[in-house]
Amino acid sequence: MAHEAALDELRALIGSPQVLVEGDLGAYERDWRGRWRGRALAVARPGDTAQVAEVVRWCARHGITIVPQGGNTGLVGGGVPDGSGRQLLLSLGRLNRVRAIDAANLTMTVEAGCVLATAQQAARQAGLLLPLSLASEGSCTLGGNLASNAGGTQVLRYGNARELCLGLEVVTAQGEVWDGLSGLRKDNTGYDLRHLFIGSEGTLGVITAAVLKLHPLPAASATALATTTDLDRTLALLQLAQRRADAALTGFEVMNERSLQLVRQHLPQAVMPLPPAPWTVLLELADPDGEAAVQARLEALLLQAAQQGLVSDAALARSGAQQQAMWHLRESISAAQACEGLNVKHDIAVPVSAIPRFVARTQALLEAAVPGVRVVNFGHLGDGNLHFNVQAPVGTAADEFLRTQETRINRLVYDEVTACGGSISAEHGIGQLKREELAARKSPVALALMRQIKQALDPDHRMNPGRML
Amino acid sequence: MAHEAALDELRALIGSPQVLVEGDLGAYERDWRGRWRGRALAVARPGDTAQVAEVVRWCARHGITIVPQGGNTGLVGGGVPDGSGRQLLLSLGRLNRVRAIDAANLTMTVEAGCVLATAQQAARQAGLLLPLSLASEGSCTLGGNLASNAGGTQVLRYGNARELCLGLEVVTAQGEVWDGLSGLRKDNTGYDLRHLFIGSEGTLGVITAAVLKLHPLPAASATALATTTDLDRTLALLQLAQRRADAALTGFEVMNERSLQLVRQHLPQAVMPLPPAPWTVLLELADPDGEAAVQARLEALLLQAAQQGLVSDAALARSGAQQQAMWHLRESISAAQACEGLNVKHDIAVPVSAIPRFVARTQALLEAAVPGVRVVNFGHLGDGNLHFNVQAPVGTAADEFLRTQETRINRLVYDEVTACGGSISAEHGIGQLKREELAARKSPVALALMRQIKQALDPDHRMNPGRML
Repeated sequence: MAHEAALDELRALIGSPQVLVEGDLGAYERDWRGRWRGRALAVARPGDTAQVAEVVRWCARHGITIVPQGGNTGLVGGGVPDGSGRQLLLSLGRLNRVRAIDAANLTMTVEAGCVLATAQQAARQAGLLLPLSLASEGSCTLGGNLASNAGGTQVLRYGNARELCLGLEVVTAQGEVWDGLSGLRKDNTGYDLRHLFIGSEGTLGVITAAVLKLHPLPAASATALATTTDLDRTLALLQLAQRRADAALTGFEVMNERSLQLVRQHLPQAVMPLPPAPWTVLLELADPDGEAAVQARLEALLLQAAQQGLVSDAALARSGAQQQAMWHLRESISAAQACEGLNVKHDIAVPVSAIPRFVARTQALLEAAVPGVRVVNFGHLGDGNLHFNVQAPVGTAADEFLRTQETRINRLVYDEVTACGGSISAEHGIGQLKREELAARKSPVALALMRQIKQALDPDHRMNPGRML
Repeated sequence: MAHEAALDELRALIGSPQVLVEGDLGAYERDWRGRWRGRALAVARPGDTAQVAEVVRWCARHGITIVPQGGNTGLVGGGVPDGSGRQLLLSLGRLNRVRAIDAANLTMTVEAGCVLATAQQAARQAGLLLPLSLASEGSCTLGGNLASNAGGTQVLRYGNARELCLGLEVVTAQGEVWDGLSGLRKDNTGYDLRHLFIGSEGTLGVITAAVLKLHPLPAASATALATTTDLDRTLALLQLAQRRADAALTGFEVMNERSLQLVRQHLPQAVMPLPPAPWTVLLELADPDGEAAVQARLEALLLQAAQQGLVSDAALARSGAQQQAMWHLRESISAAQACEGLNVKHDIAVPVSAIPRFVARTQALLEAAVPGVRVVNFGHLGDGNLHFNVQAPVGTAADEFLRTQETRINRLVYDEVTACGGSISAEHGIGQLKREELAARKSPVALALMRQIKQALDPDHRMNPGRML
């Protein structure tokens, strides 16, 4: 009864239709990959920032914990309730407006529930570029992108979500609204609260809106594939590209032979402009000087790379369709891998200079530990970020492989990452998935600082408990 | 006696010669402009991170507060002890090594006491660019640059000190060492402690080392001066430059007529390539394609700007010496202003789009409030950051002017900044100078969050008390 009275109070605050308790709440209660499934006390869908604050204060009054959720596209179980049926799922989906675009300031103000692709399009209509770009951009939301500091394919040039954010609006754990929606590029007036909330995965407060940096739309871009025989040469190619193109280099993605072999096998319609090679690189340059200039620049770069013996083969896209086809190869790897069954995924980062050593060593250790194991390795070399995925040997059932080998493989990979001074989560965050790993591997001093901050800002542990920390 | 015993303990920890208590400690106890003068219990000069930790723990044992100091080039009194004679001045000057340069990772690891120019030079010797650049680079240190999130002239392209830092080593208020010296471009494993310590002005812990991002050295740069009739056209010129040059635009500095008039008057040897105009802009482009390419690009940009009626006159530097002479004009304004006597300085930022409105309105209000007042206005237009300085009317003594008008002028300027959603400290920080102003103007929610963080990480208020918060 107390429970029903509390829910009635919530209904009075944000409107009855926005408090979901019945019917199929599965879309909120489980993640899209089906790895976690919880049960919520209710789903609250406030319509604006003031209502979010009301909901948080309601939770405080009733001792209810909060799981904020955006587009529910996360990969670490950070936005799914636990199984207790006592957590409130706070959906930001109705806070979905683009509040303003300030072209002269190169900024846009968006609400947390705005879908990334919607924001990209709004920027483009104003003749500007919102450079954040990731696979789930059609359904992920900016609140989630910021809460998890999303990465993606444009980080090399434009930075992570963190670097694209100038200001935030946040509802604190006490249900107060911090209006930090500054569009300033310089502001040295106190601790940087913005960067504290970015990447905090909803454990310190609820991001309700943000001011994002925009950039001029590049007049043209050029894309090429190039093959290399080894990672040392791939790294040398990256350095050459950075030296010659500097900020015009907007993409440098690598794919090992096995990644593209799976694409070839499972997506036979995919166009493969180059024969198989140990490594295939996707390079992209953007240029304000237009089509011809950027094509010429990329061609000259590839020619020099060939002369220096860095690339064995290269193909330059001659049309927008060819550019898309090249990106399609890169983006098809996950789908092709899924056709082979589940695999052990690692979203890791190491210093760029350590990548050849890390890959050689870790792959050798894995192959020794699990004969026949298949490493599907691809990612953002320029950021030192690899999706280092481990697939069962041919003929071994994927579920059996995961059951018997996942823990061991994780330990092996993460030990090598740690030995290189790397990160066990480059762009996906911690959530539920890597919480224990974080506690085991992060320095005790850093963990203590994090816990002190959590305790200070959310002393009742109301915000997304059991995630990250 | 207890006092002497404690100092003996400190001498045993870091060596007697590194504990200064006698002689002229003025270089540590006052700021370089002579605005603040304090008295320290002692100056401690630890030689490495472990010794810094020892010193902090020694302070904890004896209930002594700590004022960390780098190159002592700050402008807000953040690194000068108070007058009590009871604070320990912790000089980081002996932690001055460049620990490592990782060219393939585009990073360098430097200690807090390393002078910025020394680090710039070490990067250049490795064929790379450390883009942080400011007037005091010959004596400021990287620890101070990070503790105050320094800005400077390259922010438009490369960001503030904050954006150039990938990792930190920090001695906490408890005297523990947090080794966060990561050279990773992606790392989503918990709260971003790095960004919390950056800009915290020594109030949360002591930065002892950092990993900094490096960039390829641009092959060539081109510099020009252009004059405009008003700020709307100046802003349109900025937008055109950003659209046409994108990341190749590395500088966009503006100077009002009075700024250059003072330079003309007090530094008659300065070369003035253009006749006086309401606004003079210094533009700089960098380009990996070399001298001819970058000159051509800047020339084409200026031509287009002239055709669009944005610039009234322009001069392109044809040699390195001419480039330097143009920068020299910009950098001479402060010195020229000093020849006129003290003035009321404001280091403010507003959204770039708000600059014309802010300047027109604030200048009109000032001229109405203090007839004959002279606004010397210059700065980093692309960052929305102006050094909006107010000089006494001709014939009024500067000290009399400051005594009677400073408070009133500050209030007027900061009220207008606040009305535009701006910042009262764009790049210089808060320190002692703007502490009360911050308390009065920052949102109560933000201040409460900041105080909670301070209380959590430094519960005994041992770290730089009385600064910022």
